[in-house]
Amino acid sequence: MAGQIRDYTDSEARAALPCKWGAVPEGTLPAWVAEMDYAPASAITAALNGAVGRGVLGYPPFGGHGPDGDLEAAFRGFAERHWGWSLPAGATTVVGDVVDGIRLALDHLCPPGPVVIPLPCYPPFREVVELAGREARYVALDPDAERAELDLDAVRTAFDEGARTLLLCSPHNPWGRVFTRAELEAVRDLAAQYDARVVADEIHAPLVLPGGAKFTPYLDVDPTGLSVLSHSKSFNTPGLKCAQLISLRDDDREAIAALPHSANHGWSVLGMIAGVAAWRDSDLWLLALRQRLDVLREDLSEHLAERLPQARMRPLEATYLAWIDLRAYGVSDPATLGRKHGVRVAPGHDYQPGLDGHVRLNIATSADRLEEIVTRLAKALTA
Amino acid sequence: MAGQIRDYTDSEARAALPCKWGAVPEGTLPAWVAEMDYAPASAITAALNGAVGRGVLGYPPFGGHGPDGDLEAAFRGFAERHWGWSLPAGATTVVGDVVDGIRLALDHLCPPGPVVIPLPCYPPFREVVELAGREARYVALDPDAERAELDLDAVRTAFDEGARTLLLCSPHNPWGRVFTRAELEAVRDLAAQYDARVVADEIHAPLVLPGGAKFTPYLDVDPTGLSVLSHSKSFNTPGLKCAQLISLRDDDREAIAALPHSANHGWSVLGMIAGVAAWRDSDLWLLALRQRLDVLREDLSEHLAERLPQARMRPLEATYLAWIDLRAYGVSDPATLGRKHGVRVAPGHDYQPGLDGHVRLNIATSADRLEEIVTRLAKALTA
Ligand SMILES: Cc1ncc(COP(=O)(O)O)c(C=O)c1O
Ligand SMILES: Cc1ncc(COP(=O)(O)O)c(C=O)c1O
Repeated sequence: MAGQIRDYTDSEARAALPCKWGAVPEGTLPAWVAEMDYAPASAITAALNGAVGRGVLGYPPFGGHGPDGDLEAAFRGFAERHWGWSLPAGATTVVGDVVDGIRLALDHLCPPGPVVIPLPCYPPFREVVELAGREARYVALDPDAERAELDLDAVRTAFDEGARTLLLCSPHNPWGRVFTRAELEAVRDLAAQYDARVVADEIHAPLVLPGGAKFTPYLDVDPTGLSVLSHSKSFNTPGLKCAQLISLRDDDREAIAALPHSANHGWSVLGMIAGVAAWRDSDLWLLALRQRLDVLREDLSEHLAERLPQARMRPLEATYLAWIDLRAYGVSDPATLGRKHGVRVAPGHDYQPGLDGHVRLNIATSADRLEEIVTRLAKALTA
Repeated sequence: MAGQIRDYTDSEARAALPCKWGAVPEGTLPAWVAEMDYAPASAITAALNGAVGRGVLGYPPFGGHGPDGDLEAAFRGFAERHWGWSLPAGATTVVGDVVDGIRLALDHLCPPGPVVIPLPCYPPFREVVELAGREARYVALDPDAERAELDLDAVRTAFDEGARTLLLCSPHNPWGRVFTRAELEAVRDLAAQYDARVVADEIHAPLVLPGGAKFTPYLDVDPTGLSVLSHSKSFNTPGLKCAQLISLRDDDREAIAALPHSANHGWSVLGMIAGVAAWRDSDLWLLALRQRLDVLREDLSEHLAERLPQARMRPLEATYLAWIDLRAYGVSDPATLGRKHGVRVAPGHDYQPGLDGHVRLNIATSADRLEEIVTRLAKALTA
């Protein structure tokens, strides 16, 4: 089964992933942006080949700001099979990407007022809130905390001071956490007290790794929430533009239906076609991927224990993005130092301005490359 | 040469163009949205097949809000060969689509104040100006005017009243006009008097039809202007998301470079790859297309003369979108009437609210279908 995941060679990866590999000089190993060095699921390649062959390069069906039959049906099937979640028909809206979906939610569906963002966060969260003309209220994770948990007291304070939206990444990048149902219920209860809305970025939901953690769709806990997600991250197609915004509220649906076409037109027809193939026809590939990532997660622990024994890392419950605390090595910007030693990881301060000594390391590569990535990072820090 | 343009059969068209054909019931002929019932240029199909085969589904290279080497180089070659325009390197920025590029220009590059929009206009112009939180100032074309010209006195009045941006479609959809260099110089001179900026939507520039009209890039006349364009319309790939914003001004370039990634991230990697193949490798296909459209334009005149002799139409100098004045038939909404008779054209009031008796008819189909489209429209109007 694991054989279903085909590693790219370096030159294949360089041709397939112009962002991840194109941004590093020859010889440097890229472990930064969230893309995987694996060939896509065969169902996706087949669907795209078929579409290009038929000339499907024109506008997707209009009314994409309302539900789209195929993509929605494919997603509902996935949600039912993987999470036991029965999503009613008509709850999804196609959007260009997750960031577009968050922007749409902020501009047209969320109450006015500041937006709470837990830190460290996916950097575009901060950008999109600012672009939407909203004030951001940050709630930082204590880097010394044993477990990465949302500081509900701090969220409450932000709500007390006028914030009315919480932008929650669930499962969390870069925390690596899968929030429990009880944790999400506590978030819901708090939001309800303030009539605040929770926008859940659930793009990493298909990437919950083996070992007990279980994904709970936020809307299954809080039917007034909003979810934005996409097949693009788990199925390695982020360059194709296609995501989904989900709401169970009729007034949201009406607000979206009333939007002009120009307010929501960012998905590509091929992104949509890849999405149907991903949600509907790629379960085995996804299973193999999670098994592969499970092994790599283990490998990473071993390499860290051996070469960077003072590194601290909380359990990686989901995603292929390891958040590593390297403060013990006394280097404020390990990522920049790493680049001089032939490895590119993402600097922690991109996720939380001012935070020293952290990196985000992408493990979705070959076992050999992962070992070499840690080896180089260790050389950089201990040379 | 004309043989290079391959007509889709009805079932091929229905499979390839889910928007244009999917929105009409079986049996109805679609002549509304701007897509062509032709197979794409072989260079585009080959480039996309190659990319899907190599798994190029990931993020395009970052820094797309700065210049992109390949796409820009391909476009600069096209501009030089087709328009004798030498565009300096570094002047283009990749954007998701033309509407995204206009939005980016309005939000980050244009002076504050209302935006002048000549009417009738591509409907998203009105939407995007409103979404950007700008007031629109409309300058309507007299439907009885012999020639479609910009009413500079009315534009001056709008500038006098505070407008500082003019959104000019050039060549114009739906007017069908190719503005002369002298006309564009007059626009430039007027704008200069008010420190106003002109945003030129030049998406239809490659579709200037044979017979004398010549495209003048607005920035060749006014180096302070902004241009937004794409291969997507002329090469029939609008579902792939990729366009270009052009500015010759250093301060624009700096403003764009300073934007966060989330402000401009809407293009797909496959749209970019199609763009390179279109601009660089598809000249013969484009030449054949213009010859084909030239013939169809002639056909349309003959069909109208025969079946709808009271229809009035100005010469179609560019685009495959004929703007037809049917007021003589005394029907306020000929498009809706047409749908009952098996043909879907675009209603004139979508382009200018309140304008009766006009339609926009897409001629980019087979000669047989075009004849049948006019026949059905004539039946609708004269039954
Ligand atoms: C939390 C999170 N949200 C969204 C995205 C992707 O966003 P988009 O669909 O806008 O490319 C990523 C990509 O890494 C992510 O980690
Ligand atoms: C004048 C004009 N601008 C832009 C577009 C296309 O815009 P976009 O690239 O946003 O799909 C069209 C499509 O018909 C058009 O006619």
